[in-house]
Amino acid sequence: MIEPIILKGFRDSLPSEEIKKKKLENIIEDVFKLYGFSPIDTPCLEYSSVLLGKGGGETDKQVFSFSDNGNRDVSMRFDLTVPLARFSASNRDELSFPFRRYQIGKVWRGEKPQKGRYREFLQCDGDIIGTESILSDYEILSLLYTLMDRLVDGREEIHLSHRGMFNSLLDNLNLKDKSLDILRTVDKKSKIGIDKIKDELFSIIGDDSKVNKVLEFINAGENKSFEETLETLSLIVDKNDEGLNRLSSLYSLLKENGIEKNFKLDPSITRGLDYYTGLVFETILSDYPSLGSVSSGGRYDNLASLYSKEKMPGVGLSVGLDRLIVALEENSSPLLEDVSSSNVLVLGDDLSFLTRTIRELRESNIKADLYTESIDKMKKIYDYTEKNHIPYTLTLKDNAYSLKTLKTRETKTFVAIEDVIKELQREC
Amino acid sequence: MIEPIILKGFRDSLPSEEIKKKKLENIIEDVFKLYGFSPIDTPCLEYSSVLLGKGGGETDKQVFSFSDNGNRDVSMRFDLTVPLARFSASNRDELSFPFRRYQIGKVWRGEKPQKGRYREFLQCDGDIIGTESILSDYEILSLLYTLMDRLVDGREEIHLSHRGMFNSLLDNLNLKDKSLDILRTVDKKSKIGIDKIKDELFSIIGDDSKVNKVLEFINAGENKSFEETLETLSLIVDKNDEGLNRLSSLYSLLKENGIEKNFKLDPSITRGLDYYTGLVFETILSDYPSLGSVSSGGRYDNLASLYSKEKMPGVGLSVGLDRLIVALEENSSPLLEDVSSSNVLVLGDDLSFLTRTIRELRESNIKADLYTESIDKMKKIYDYTEKNHIPYTLTLKDNAYSLKTLKTRETKTFVAIEDVIKELQREC
Repeated sequence: MIEPIILKGFRDSLPSEEIKKKKLENIIEDVFKLYGFSPIDTPCLEYSSVLLGKGGGETDKQVFSFSDNGNRDVSMRFDLTVPLARFSASNRDELSFPFRRYQIGKVWRGEKPQKGRYREFLQCDGDIIGTESILSDYEILSLLYTLMDRLVDGREEIHLSHRGMFNSLLDNLNLKDKSLDILRTVDKKSKIGIDKIKDELFSIIGDDSKVNKVLEFINAGENKSFEETLETLSLIVDKNDEGLNRLSSLYSLLKENGIEKNFKLDPSITRGLDYYTGLVFETILSDYPSLGSVSSGGRYDNLASLYSKEKMPGVGLSVGLDRLIVALEENSSPLLEDVSSSNVLVLGDDLSFLTRTIRELRESNIKADLYTESIDKMKKIYDYTEKNHIPYTLTLKDNAYSLKTLKTRETKTFVAIEDVIKELQREC
Repeated sequence: MIEPIILKGFRDSLPSEEIKKKKLENIIEDVFKLYGFSPIDTPCLEYSSVLLGKGGGETDKQVFSFSDNGNRDVSMRFDLTVPLARFSASNRDELSFPFRRYQIGKVWRGEKPQKGRYREFLQCDGDIIGTESILSDYEILSLLYTLMDRLVDGREEIHLSHRGMFNSLLDNLNLKDKSLDILRTVDKKSKIGIDKIKDELFSIIGDDSKVNKVLEFINAGENKSFEETLETLSLIVDKNDEGLNRLSSLYSLLKENGIEKNFKLDPSITRGLDYYTGLVFETILSDYPSLGSVSSGGRYDNLASLYSKEKMPGVGLSVGLDRLIVALEENSSPLLEDVSSSNVLVLGDDLSFLTRTIRELRESNIKADLYTESIDKMKKIYDYTEKNHIPYTLTLKDNAYSLKTLKTRETKTFVAIEDVIKELQREC
């Protein structure tokens, strides 16, 4: 006998969890489609040299890498962005740019497993590649708004900023060579708090007045409206700063469309060491900020620089499905309420009557489960309906149908299947 | 610069292919749900010892196995059946049996790549576990019928038989010890033809009269109806044979439900060396037999014997999505017709008018793409609509809407967005 254990950091998804996950996936997919995004897929395994960059040599410890049976160095994908870059370069001639693609798929990282962090998880990414247009920035923000409207009913705060604006500030302060360390520090603001940030910044910069300028910049959005923050920033960076103007124009578009309410200009958003160069954003749930960002992204200058001489600028976002499920469960969201495997469990001992009835139910698009076991053991049957969250049983006897609502234990009897179907269609 | 190549036997899925794949997945998923099946998911990586059985030692060359960074021997799943067995044993207390589950997911096999065979492919499996009931056999066949009705419009032939019946025959002929070789040979019938089968059987059995009995058995369905074949078989095996009676009862149920037409009793179906013990079946497309089986399965005595002392009998099927796509494309199936990324491409240079219009379209659930680039380059725009299979453009100018049907090049002008929406809703 082999003990049926699974690997640390991996998990099974039981029916009720998987039903929830698929519901959210469907909502996300519907929004991507509504915005004209097309799905693609890429291999889960690729050449290590392609996935990890030319580097080779020391393998990234977080990546599942190995030699396959043909002695090729291969790696499992650790995100959907590098594969998208490779895909865009490989299939450039088949695609039409700007290319709007979404991809929902598993990725693998050998991170230390901890609560809510797994070594195998789902990523949902959407990007518009091959454009620098402000409209593409707007489309991504508008899509994010629609997504959050459907998923968390508008209880989100979208914190956005512009990486170019931050870079300009650091340029002006002659801190360009330290920008990586500074960005990395500022990115931790929501985790470690402003006091620690101040200390860290001082040890990097070593000049009180410059530290204060950086702090003034990253705090410019505190307790201020989007427009007030724009105003404040125009006094800190150049008022003709390209990034600042882009944010201002973006805000005008959001406002004209009446969707500006949940967008917050927050210059402390940097997206750490990512490849972002323009707009950057993170999405916090107003009643669950400790969860961190449930959707983030931004604009990059050149996605596929590793694989192609042609420049591929773009803008995109990634949705954190696992975190969203946690938040929706916490809030008892109606989206996750129905996890039933079917609408009705059909019981009977006349096989012919039973199979004909269930066929008619299904032909009317009622999700019906046929109980294949002895119908004498009522406890087993109730256990079955409970574990599968099935709301009704339909018992067939003497050419009649008894429909029982399990929640109320109320039973109605019918003589015509059409009436059973009508009743179920009304209720389900 | 790194050449953006992918591994042999792996492939990218471009938008039009991925849209098709997702459509078929949705149809398959809808049918599983209609029959009360619940989705589950299992890790793509598991302990090699768990996935490959206690054997250890020599690793299966077809399996992607490696040592992870924690020095664990791990393997990528090569089917969804072994993970289901492990899952059922691991989560026995959380599940309610009979357990109806479906799972659609990628699996990996290091097979020699050839036309239509890949090292990474999708499996779609459905099983009912924890029951020996004939109703569960019937449910799987009925589900297969509904699936094929929706996918290939009834152009399928479902060849079925019973492994137990074949075993009885071999028992009666004192050939039990050679049954593995015999089953393996018979399984190749559709590939190598009956003459070669005869030769091979003779070299295994070495007795003309016994070879003839086996041939008589496997040919019993040739040019005969289901009922005639039952009759013929009752003269070859014991007429009280359990398998034969089960097939006879199953046929009665199919007939009473008026879905018997495409089911063919074909005793040459053995499903090779699989773990099947009862009903076995394969599905051939009547106008594309050379494609092989697009959906097969059967009944097994004990799914999780490796992991659990508790017996878990069940019945299930697997759908070959890749082959189905080939068949549907060959037949120009209407199911795969619409691969458009959106219903309409919206063009304009007044950003405010543009964004408000596209918002209204999407609020009416019209899939709309916003062209983010200069609208002067008409050739680029037409190339974009063509590659993305978008049927309409909507050009905004001077507060009016010009809706162009790209196929006919016909243009209609509207002054109210409501009328544009009505027109698009009627057409899309």
